[in-house]
Amino acid sequence: MAITFGDNQYGKAEVRLVHINREGERHQIKDLNVSSSLRGDFAAAHTEGDNSHVVATDTQKNTVYAFAQQYGVGAIEDFGLRLGHHFTGDFDHVTGAQIRIEEYGWERIQADGGDHPHAFSRAGGGTRTTVVTIDGPQAWVVSGLTDLTVLKSTGSEFTGFPRDRYTSLAETTDRILATAVTARWRYIGTDVDWDKDYSDIRRILLESFAVKHSLALQQTLYYMGEQVLEAHPEVAEIRMSMPNKHHFLVDLSPYGLPNDNEVYYAADRPYGLIEGTVTRDDAPDAGRAWQSVPGF
Amino acid sequence: MAITFGDNQYGKAEVRLVHINREGERHQIKDLNVSSSLRGDFAAAHTEGDNSHVVATDTQKNTVYAFAQQYGVGAIEDFGLRLGHHFTGDFDHVTGAQIRIEEYGWERIQADGGDHPHAFSRAGGGTRTTVVTIDGPQAWVVSGLTDLTVLKSTGSEFTGFPRDRYTSLAETTDRILATAVTARWRYIGTDVDWDKDYSDIRRILLESFAVKHSLALQQTLYYMGEQVLEAHPEVAEIRMSMPNKHHFLVDLSPYGLPNDNEVYYAADRPYGLIEGTVTRDDAPDAGRAWQSVPGF
Amino acid sequence: MAITFGDNQYGKAEVRLVHINREGERHQIKDLNVSSSLRGDFAAAHTEGDNSHVVATDTQKNTVYAFAQQYGVGAIEDFGLRLGHHFTGDFDHVTGAQIRIEEYGWERIQADGGDHPHAFSRAGGGTRTTVVTIDGPQAWVVSGLTDLTVLKSTGSEFTGFPRDRYTSLAETTDRILATAVTARWRYIGTDVDWDKDYSDIRRILLESFAVKHSLALQQTLYYMGEQVLEAHPEVAEIRMSMPNKHHFLVDLSPYGLPNDNEVYYAADRPYGLIEGTVTRDDAPDAGRAWQSVPGF
Amino acid sequence: MAITFGDNQYGKAEVRLVHINREGERHQIKDLNVSSSLRGDFAAAHTEGDNSHVVATDTQKNTVYAFAQQYGVGAIEDFGLRLGHHFTGDFDHVTGAQIRIEEYGWERIQADGGDHPHAFSRAGGGTRTTVVTIDGPQAWVVSGLTDLTVLKSTGSEFTGFPRDRYTSLAETTDRILATAVTARWRYIGTDVDWDKDYSDIRRILLESFAVKHSLALQQTLYYMGEQVLEAHPEVAEIRMSMPNKHHFLVDLSPYGLPNDNEVYYAADRPYGLIEGTVTRDDAPDAGRAWQSVPGF
Repeated sequence: MAITFGDNQYGKAEVRLVHINREGERHQIKDLNVSSSLRGDFAAAHTEGDNSHVVATDTQKNTVYAFAQQYGVGAIEDFGLRLGHHFTGDFDHVTGAQIRIEEYGWERIQADGGDHPHAFSRAGGGTRTTVVTIDGPQAWVVSGLTDLTVLKSTGSEFTGFPRDRYTSLAETTDRILATAVTARWRYIGTDVDWDKDYSDIRRILLESFAVKHSLALQQTLYYMGEQVLEAHPEVAEIRMSMPNKHHFLVDLSPYGLPNDNEVYYAADRPYGLIEGTVTRDDAPDAGRAWQSVPGF
Repeated sequence: MAITFGDNQYGKAEVRLVHINREGERHQIKDLNVSSSLRGDFAAAHTEGDNSHVVATDTQKNTVYAFAQQYGVGAIEDFGLRLGHHFTGDFDHVTGAQIRIEEYGWERIQADGGDHPHAFSRAGGGTRTTVVTIDGPQAWVVSGLTDLTVLKSTGSEFTGFPRDRYTSLAETTDRILATAVTARWRYIGTDVDWDKDYSDIRRILLESFAVKHSLALQQTLYYMGEQVLEAHPEVAEIRMSMPNKHHFLVDLSPYGLPNDNEVYYAADRPYGLIEGTVTRDDAPDAGRAWQSVPGF
Repeated sequence: MAITFGDNQYGKAEVRLVHINREGERHQIKDLNVSSSLRGDFAAAHTEGDNSHVVATDTQKNTVYAFAQQYGVGAIEDFGLRLGHHFTGDFDHVTGAQIRIEEYGWERIQADGGDHPHAFSRAGGGTRTTVVTIDGPQAWVVSGLTDLTVLKSTGSEFTGFPRDRYTSLAETTDRILATAVTARWRYIGTDVDWDKDYSDIRRILLESFAVKHSLALQQTLYYMGEQVLEAHPEVAEIRMSMPNKHHFLVDLSPYGLPNDNEVYYAADRPYGLIEGTVTRDDAPDAGRAWQSVPGF
Repeated sequence: MAITFGDNQYGKAEVRLVHINREGERHQIKDLNVSSSLRGDFAAAHTEGDNSHVVATDTQKNTVYAFAQQYGVGAIEDFGLRLGHHFTGDFDHVTGAQIRIEEYGWERIQADGGDHPHAFSRAGGGTRTTVVTIDGPQAWVVSGLTDLTVLKSTGSEFTGFPRDRYTSLAETTDRILATAVTARWRYIGTDVDWDKDYSDIRRILLESFAVKHSLALQQTLYYMGEQVLEAHPEVAEIRMSMPNKHHFLVDLSPYGLPNDNEVYYAADRPYGLIEGTVTRDDAPDAGRAWQSVPGF
């Protein structure tokens, strides 16, 4: 038996980059949170404290800022691919890289009857994400969104579940269904119109959540994923994590009052947590695409 | 010298109420976080453990839910006034009440080419607030908003400040100005179209932030408040707390690169914090309106 | 009627300072979060954008770091007084200052059978705070602690409260009592052994919470404050804010099980919130001591 | 090509359980956050909304509370194993379960010269965790800790790293090294004295962080893991995630002041993130032990 060094990576997390494109009067803003992780031949740093292979995390941060100036930002998937290929291409001992990016949305403030050219307010509606993974000659892109909070005030049931000694939940044919969607979809290749795809997939997720009569949050999740895959052949699979944010009907009978699905208590914890994958049966192998991605 | 009992209040904080108005096919949703505090003759509870005057905080919570069923919710200012008058009116030893409410916005999901009747997504753009304070026969309403995050990518300067031994900041005539606005305005009376006022004041805050060329965040704050007071004679004063969310230009010169106000680092801490009041010189006395409101 | 400029202040918030005293082998660490706010003649900045009176918040930050080097840190109350007097003394147009400090505790790591001289782990048990306020020649010190989370598993009752239509809570003579204490005490003067006082007042708060049989959280709060004032004549008053962190006994009867005060659900929201002051009847006037301190 | 249903699980997250053992005068407290996830034959729920195989997440929550009453809590590893075996054993269509538990520590309050029998304050020093995974007849236990924040004020270097166009970091032979340790170790079997192991492994992590002269955070991480494996043959591997919480020396030279490693700015973001595994070369296969565990 010997003690050895196993799987590892290191990098700089949460580099907050704001890039302003000032070409013309009408500024464009990109507001990102960028994290990088490198893999490769770093054993000597761990066992000997020899840093000769260790690209400093400070250098990784500098590169994020410098690349934003040199190449602009563009779609976060392209920005991630550029950074990832740089780290694996320019350093002998770096064989893999993962670039994780969150993008915060901004809307133009309305002023003087139209869009203001350089004043913005932070948008709601979830955060766009991507995880770009490079391993030698291979590259994978897993894009997605988080914190897309949605609610249906009817059109949701939960019945027919098994009952044992510890089951006290009543069946219901009309409840509030609320969740904060985290979705991540793996692209088959990298020749994609990233912004257009993101926009359309987000639209499908919202619309399919809305229109599907729900017999279980699991059913809603599957339907949402299925709709995305049917419309987007360039997507190999989609994984979703959806907390069931419980809204409990308040019992007002002690006060002599009815409660006809009107008054709810929005609970914090505990919450249900539904996680599932919808995939193509001929999807290419995922390789390292999901490495380090919170999963299930 | 004697040790005595001083200022005090107690209540239930953060009652999460979701109310669905199901009249007709098109549901309306109100999503609130309600806190109540009572004042009055509670000395015996403190010194003797005698609770005969202490309206249980559990009862306060129940009343929030019951009132939502009995009277609906409506504007949060009206809901707060109704709750506050109830506590001071129905219990002999309760002489004052404060109801603090946050309202989270929801937008209708677009489906089948239009607004969905009962599916919603959480909106961005800040949280609406009110603080209703009752003291015997008097009532004050301080409404506002929090977390309205805004940014200008140009049109902001900071020059001409004094320099001492510890001053190293360079003057600038072009910087990013970003803040998360917390504003609270005190109404002169309670005969107000609350929803209309909120909507218009929010619009003015956004638009005045956008259009004002800024020589200091203080100047922007004052201008925003002034515009609100000029348009709304029913508002006695407005208090604003605006963190200066620093965006630092990244020095790319070590890498041989320019940075013509393009690439910024968005910092977390520390941040500037600018707090100020704009008021009418003939505003009625504020009384207890600002009691317990985080202030300056 | 005219629109005018009212109460205001500005400064730098959350300057994170870590100071290492390296005199000798055994290092001392001070880990602070420092915020400063200035008051004075700043009207021109607001109305004209004239910054000639505005000590830059960047300068305030620099001064915090420079003073740590020049004078060391010592007790946070002394550090706050030194900073406050500097800002009001060295700038003509600054007439008031408030320095708010949080101090995070560290414990020495045990190694080789004793205290390690320069390795530490973050301590629990709450955060020490101070708010130093200077107004011209006057100075006030309000020190305290936050996030001191405590729990009693018995020795707490709640009975005898009034019942109305909306009251459903059962009386109990044995419940869990849990809270996260925020306490702030105002010193009469500034000739105080700050560290010794802090340590002893913290001990009294813990011990009095533990030993007092509680008929109401209000009673516990009052007792805790009373014990502090009795032992510390240099303290004029103490204000406490104590959330009632509810632990609900889980009803296990549907599963044919008893629950003899053994199994509890720790709830997040809503929570009770009990706030009260214990004071001396001959305490000197508080002046501006509580300005900007979250209160009630 | 067909669209199919892939990997999935569901359960109840963050069940907050407080259990009081009242045998004798001296109460014992266990304060847990319990999450369960089930795997099995749930396809019909997703594709048809047929819940006949879906053990309600509400039932999972009830079982946590009921088991605490029926069997007590004990070591979190035993509690997790008991729950996991119940779900896979008692429901035909459930083939796998994962129980994730966080345990919050409490210390006895000192009163009247000794430990109080039923009054506690929340302890610092990190949170104990376990992840118990059941898959048919197999069981794995991965225990650990999170949020163990530690700092060395000297005894840390970082030199010898490669330099490219984007490298500006200076080498240093004396810096602050600070991190918040997340460690998770996989046990080879389940016949372990869980509490004793946890306590000793935590001690080793702290002590080895303290005594190791650090040439890189990677080296410190490896050393810490190696010490654990050397002392604990029942541990197959240990994975650590350690953010490099940067403390930057403040440049005081603009103010004519030295800074001999005394005054630091504690930064929030970005931070380095070092993740690594130390393992035995003859460790049994990990199977599903790390499924759903945030990893790298």
